[in-house]
Amino acid sequence: MTIRLHCFGESGHSYKAALALSMQGVDWTPEFIDFFNGETRSDAYRRDVNAMGEAPVLVDGDTHLTQSAVIQAYLSDRTGRFGGASLEEAREILRWQFWDNHKLSSQAGMLRFLMNFLPEEKRPTAVIDFTANRLRSAYAVLDAHLDGRDWIVGDALTNADLTCCGYLYYPEPFGFVRADWPHIDAWLARLSEQPGWAHPYDLMPRAFPPNAPTKEAT
Amino acid sequence: MTIRLHCFGESGHSYKAALALSMQGVDWTPEFIDFFNGETRSDAYRRDVNAMGEAPVLVDGDTHLTQSAVIQAYLSDRTGRFGGASLEEAREILRWQFWDNHKLSSQAGMLRFLMNFLPEEKRPTAVIDFTANRLRSAYAVLDAHLDGRDWIVGDALTNADLTCCGYLYYPEPFGFVRADWPHIDAWLARLSEQPGWAHPYDLMPRAFPPNAPTKEAT
Repeated sequence: MTIRLHCFGESGHSYKAALALSMQGVDWTPEFIDFFNGETRSDAYRRDVNAMGEAPVLVDGDTHLTQSAVIQAYLSDRTGRFGGASLEEAREILRWQFWDNHKLSSQAGMLRFLMNFLPEEKRPTAVIDFTANRLRSAYAVLDAHLDGRDWIVGDALTNADLTCCGYLYYPEPFGFVRADWPHIDAWLARLSEQPGWAHPYDLMPRAFPPNAPTKEAT
Repeated sequence: MTIRLHCFGESGHSYKAALALSMQGVDWTPEFIDFFNGETRSDAYRRDVNAMGEAPVLVDGDTHLTQSAVIQAYLSDRTGRFGGASLEEAREILRWQFWDNHKLSSQAGMLRFLMNFLPEEKRPTAVIDFTANRLRSAYAVLDAHLDGRDWIVGDALTNADLTCCGYLYYPEPFGFVRADWPHIDAWLARLSEQPGWAHPYDLMPRAFPPNAPTKEAT
């Protein structure tokens, strides 16, 4: 049975799962979430898809998984790939995934939303400045870690890489400029040259602007 | 050898690890972090303790672990406790830990810091209001989930509970009022009655106010 992933193109958290599916060579299909028209906030979505009201959600037969890192671990359990070469590496991957969820993707996703997907007059300037400043600390941690390393954990591509890159290929401005962070920049280039890599907007249907005809509707 | 945990009382992320150690009945000792005098931002801390500049850090002989969920998993691997009764439960625990790191503890920790540990004239009102509002959505998700359940995952106490409670026992105001969330309130009471439970300020030395003599110095 084909795996389905509830997702939408603008969601970097969805991208982490979609990229893992693509690079694992798994047969999968995106299930479009009409995010900007409020689908994840609807009672039906919370009841039938995810009570947390979030994307992505992976459906594989009776298995129903949410949180991109859990989805990545599920795929690695099936294929033996990207999960690290030892128990120590597996713990280190988890460490970077938690760091990403707390300090990197969570804040980058929110900031990008506020700066690009809210009407200009509704953008909260103080929150934007505050979050952009905190994100610079996160970029500095990742950039320093990647100095002299090809991949975040060990000597090979792992789910740590497929997690931390979640928002970093998007074109919309949110204060992240690749040239400012040379080690992150080189790592993103390296990752994009691996088999199965694809840009988020090539992997998943886009949901913005709202009320526009979607890929499925056209 | 006694396990050491680099931590300080005000850190709910540290509390998640300290509480797991306490409830697992492990022999451990806190290693005080002088957070409010900038210890985690120092070059020495980033070089010798944690390059991410965060607390907690567990040291067990040569094993050096950061991120509270990784520490909790390490302890569960040793004792077989709190890690869930099946692979499905283990995934569900991880799911709630990631949700907590993204939507609950990360925001609660930041908001509590801004509202209590910054000088009044430096408190960013717009960021405080914005974050408090987002947190209400998180409390609502957890409260709804705990309706009719004793514990977050399965029929027993797990690391999901020891994670999501991270900031919820603290007395400082950050917009969380237990009486507003009856299912969270009952669950916090239930958890606090379990063997080995202790309040964060009874498990770890406090670091606030800065420049005060610490437990170690007195």
